[in-house]
Amino acid sequence: MRIAIDAMGGDNAPEATVEGGLAAAAEWKDTEIVLVGDQGRIEPLLEGKQVPSNLTLRHASEVIDAEDEPVRAVRRKKDSSMVVAGRMVKEQEAHAMISAGNTGALMTTGLLVVGRMEGIERPALAPMIPTLDDLGVLALDLGANMDAKPEHLAQYAQMGSLYRQKVHNIAEPRVGLLNVGTEAGKGNELTKLAYPLLEQLPIRFVGNVEARDVLTGNCDVLVCDGFAGNILLKAMEGTAGAIFSLLKEQFTKSLKTKLAAAMLMPELRGLKNKLDYTEHGGAPLLGLSGLVVKSHGSADANAVKNAVRQARIALQNRLVESISKEISGK
Amino acid sequence: MRIAIDAMGGDNAPEATVEGGLAAAAEWKDTEIVLVGDQGRIEPLLEGKQVPSNLTLRHASEVIDAEDEPVRAVRRKKDSSMVVAGRMVKEQEAHAMISAGNTGALMTTGLLVVGRMEGIERPALAPMIPTLDDLGVLALDLGANMDAKPEHLAQYAQMGSLYRQKVHNIAEPRVGLLNVGTEAGKGNELTKLAYPLLEQLPIRFVGNVEARDVLTGNCDVLVCDGFAGNILLKAMEGTAGAIFSLLKEQFTKSLKTKLAAAMLMPELRGLKNKLDYTEHGGAPLLGLSGLVVKSHGSADANAVKNAVRQARIALQNRLVESISKEISGK
Repeated sequence: MRIAIDAMGGDNAPEATVEGGLAAAAEWKDTEIVLVGDQGRIEPLLEGKQVPSNLTLRHASEVIDAEDEPVRAVRRKKDSSMVVAGRMVKEQEAHAMISAGNTGALMTTGLLVVGRMEGIERPALAPMIPTLDDLGVLALDLGANMDAKPEHLAQYAQMGSLYRQKVHNIAEPRVGLLNVGTEAGKGNELTKLAYPLLEQLPIRFVGNVEARDVLTGNCDVLVCDGFAGNILLKAMEGTAGAIFSLLKEQFTKSLKTKLAAAMLMPELRGLKNKLDYTEHGGAPLLGLSGLVVKSHGSADANAVKNAVRQARIALQNRLVESISKEISGK
Repeated sequence: MRIAIDAMGGDNAPEATVEGGLAAAAEWKDTEIVLVGDQGRIEPLLEGKQVPSNLTLRHASEVIDAEDEPVRAVRRKKDSSMVVAGRMVKEQEAHAMISAGNTGALMTTGLLVVGRMEGIERPALAPMIPTLDDLGVLALDLGANMDAKPEHLAQYAQMGSLYRQKVHNIAEPRVGLLNVGTEAGKGNELTKLAYPLLEQLPIRFVGNVEARDVLTGNCDVLVCDGFAGNILLKAMEGTAGAIFSLLKEQFTKSLKTKLAAAMLMPELRGLKNKLDYTEHGGAPLLGLSGLVVKSHGSADANAVKNAVRQARIALQNRLVESISKEISGK
């Protein structure tokens, strides 16, 4: 199989993408890694390194930045590393692409370059949210679709369930609906209408899940519209971040607290990592006609390599074909 | 002024409500406190106590429970302590009512018994969310209105701004819109349409506020629909709760960590209280023709007394009249 990496995407590109690509190519000999990006910047990073024969370079002259307006950037920068990688997937030159670049632009590349899967109205971005049991929950949509219809939520449920089966080997993933109460009649118009649709699907629907219970991991897939998902994820991030800064502040108040805090450092660091969702791998864009994985903007080489690992498992287990079969019967 | 307390509402009723009512009456001699509820249960709690002359008892034979279905309970239990207190406000026998009971039933009592203010489509429940600077942010709506229209959000903004002025003495409260990004064009259909409406109001609109920034207190009033507000608040609660349980768990791992944690206990407890939104007083129901304050379900005597304090300030500063003037010009 062949996996294209947008070598210019992300805060640490191209160093992290090149290093991650090298590590992936070295580990998985059956996988061709194509680094897509500026030859003049990538080649120096490969010099003096042991470059495996299954790693190649595809030159792309442009770069989409974090500040670029997504649709405009994808339309104009036709020779950007992200769009070229997307085109490779579209034209089946690559089986999957990975990017740590501009999220909106990657969603747009998915829609406009790779293309939607037949029968899917809205592809969804599906990151893992960390949970206390370290297993995480796949939440979708956390992308650019702010106003979802009940039917979209139903498709998210099916796609998320298949992803957890195929990539994480969970036989019957528990699918929950993000809502304001656990009872069936609760919610806004969207979730009230989505509930009976989810009940009818061939998935293990476990009902409504409240925002306060997400961290305890009572479902494997959490279905929500992009607006509610954003509020959820950012509230969790913001609260965890604020508590850790406060702890730091409180613990450096006096010599006594400093000493005590130093003794607890390994525990605190472990806790922080547990709740850091950048640690939890790449997020697939589900509902496209090819496999696209979004790596976190601050991804390091290890995160890039992990995204390759994820993509390999998804490809080996024919994720895209399974979703297509489930959704459109083809 | 006269303030009715639903003496049977809340997890700690009637003990906490009676004790809180006694304390309030003792402190504010200019305020008549009316305890509304079951005479047979309240009187024994007053026995042997110094009962101030400005505290009276109004018998009500029924109680609305936490499990009662709100609309049904309010319609049927006409002699419940909550409904009787609401009727006192409606009939101007009391200037305000306070209840720690069933939130949905209290919203319904507000709508059906006290009545909406002219020009208001949807009254809003407006609790304080704790912030790191300890000043808190008034968030609305966090009530039963799951599907808001842009015009409702605009009314929330006006009412919240007036509340902060009148009750918290903030000259120009900063009003933010809960959204997925700070730029003006961001959001779902609702927030995109609400943004220009908020810009036109005679308030200090500071733009969009992301969920991760709520805790840092960059606004005094946070406007949102009930669904998004619920996700926000419960995600914050859930994350804080989970982190504190994890800390506890990690800190009791070994003798060393136990000792260190014990030294940090006062700091940890302070931090926990800072983020505990039950500490932050009662939540007004704004947009009714009278003043209704929701105290937290687990309110103790002190919380009940604090709710009376809040109600007094709101009455003294003619909050309801100000909102009416602003909204309907009357």
